[in-house]
Formats: sequence, structure tokens, C-alpha cells
Amino acid sequence: MSDHRPAPAGPLAATRPGPLAATRPGPLAPARPVAAHEPPYYAVVFTSVRTDDDSGYGETAERMEERVREIPGFLGLDHARSPGGLSITVGYFRDAAAIEEWRGDAEHRTAQQRGRAQWYERYTVHVARVERSHGYERDQD
Amino acid sequence: MSDHRPAPAGPLAATRPGPLAATRPGPLAPARPVAAHEPPYYAVVFTSVRTDDDSGYGETAERMEERVREIPGFLGLDHARSPGGLSITVGYFRDAAAIEEWRGDAEHRTAQQRGRAQWYERYTVHVARVERSHGYERDQD
Repeated sequence: MSDHRPAPAGPLAATRPGPLAATRPGPLAPARPVAAHEPPYYAVVFTSVRTDDDSGYGETAERMEERVREIPGFLGLDHARSPGGLSITVGYFRDAAAIEEWRGDAEHRTAQQRGRAQWYERYTVHVARVERSHGYERDQD
Repeated sequence: MSDHRPAPAGPLAATRPGPLAATRPGPLAPARPVAAHEPPYYAVVFTSVRTDDDSGYGETAERMEERVREIPGFLGLDHARSPGGLSITVGYFRDAAAIEEWRGDAEHRTAQQRGRAQWYERYTVHVARVERSHGYERDQD
């Protein structure tokens, strides 16, 4: 894959639209994947299937996104959900310490408990250390 | 997160519906995330935004899914796409050698070239070694 131009790392990650924006795309909020960062860094892959109970989910998701962006070492968030199907959220972190801080966040833990009780039929979490990454962007001409 | 029951590893990964099924969910093909496997294993996270040109995409995606399932050490595939927004595909592999084999597949390389020429506005690829994982599944009663 030698014809890839590496994507610029960093700044976009903090400003791109999050989970809620991704489900309500509009001309002002085009989706943009989190860029390749300099390895090593971490990716937390959260794949889920939801229940029919959406009550309170949107507010909590929005609040969790605010919270995680405050974690030092947080690099960005990608989210996609197929209508009626699988939902995937990938959070990127500079190191394992940043993940631990997010994992221990009290508000996050409460949200996780509510998620298991109410919103998720099933899910899988994979915590992974990124060894290499690259990006591609079409010429804008 | 001590109240999780670990998800069973393995067999479901090979039989769950793939990318195309995930965009056309139906009662016969419920979405199911790939289960947590025994670490270490690898996750290849592919996040993308598509162009408006869909011609030939479906057939190629279907063919690529057939191909990757033939790679020894392939563990499964998760896919989600927000309408008009971000698309995320995560492929899971037992080891780096399995990824290299898939990366070197001639038909795959041709599809990648066509993807850059035609289907993708931008994308990022993260190749990551999974250090831990777990799953949750609601009681079926």
C-alpha cells in the first residue's frame, strides 16, 4: 500500500462530530474518520446490538462523549451504526493509562451499568495497542 | 466491570452475517458482534467515508468477504455504516501472519486500488494487537 499519503495526525480528532452527529449527518457536519496517529497508541473497539429501549440513551451518549474528551491522552472517537443492526464505537487513546482513567470514571461506570440493564442486548469490547496506521484522502480538486 | 460474563469465543464469528447483511438487516439475519477471543489476537480497524459512486461496490464487498474468510487465522468481521456518514469495518485475525496474508492477496489489492479510485473519499486503517477483551450478553429469558 505504498501509494497512500499518510493522513495528518491529531487536531481533527478533537473537533469532529461525535456519535450523535454521525446518526444525524448534515451538510454542516460531514463525517470524517479519526486520523492515523503516531504509533503506538490504543484503540478500544466497542461493538454492540441495542435493545428496543432508547430512553435516556441520547443524553447519556452525549454526556459520555463530553466526559471522554476531557481525559488526558484521549485522541478521538469513531462511531457508526447500521439502522436496526450493529453499532461500532472506536475510542483512541495515547496510552494504557488514559484508558484506565476513562475506565475508572464514576459517571462512565454508572452509564455502563445502565447500558447493561437497559440499552444493550449484547456487546464485545476489544482493547488493542495500535502498531501501525495510515490514511488516505482523495484529492480535493 | 466484574459483572460481565465472558462471551463464548469463536464459532459464531465464522457464521454471522457480513457487511451486506448488516446494511439490510432482517429477522433472519440479526446482527451479532464478533465475540471476544483469547488474547493476543489482532484487530484491523478500517474507518471510511464513501463517495457517491456505489457502482460495483456491493459485489466487490461480498467477494472480499468470501476471500477473507478463507484466510487461515481469520476470526471474524464487524461492520456498521451510519446512513450518509461514517463506515467502520473491523477484521479480527489470530496473528500478524494472517493479516500479512490478507494484505498480500492479489484480488484484495486490486479491490483496494479501485476503492481509492472510486469508492472512498477518505479512510484510516489502524492495525492493533488486542491485549484484552470481554463480552456481555443479556439473559435470554
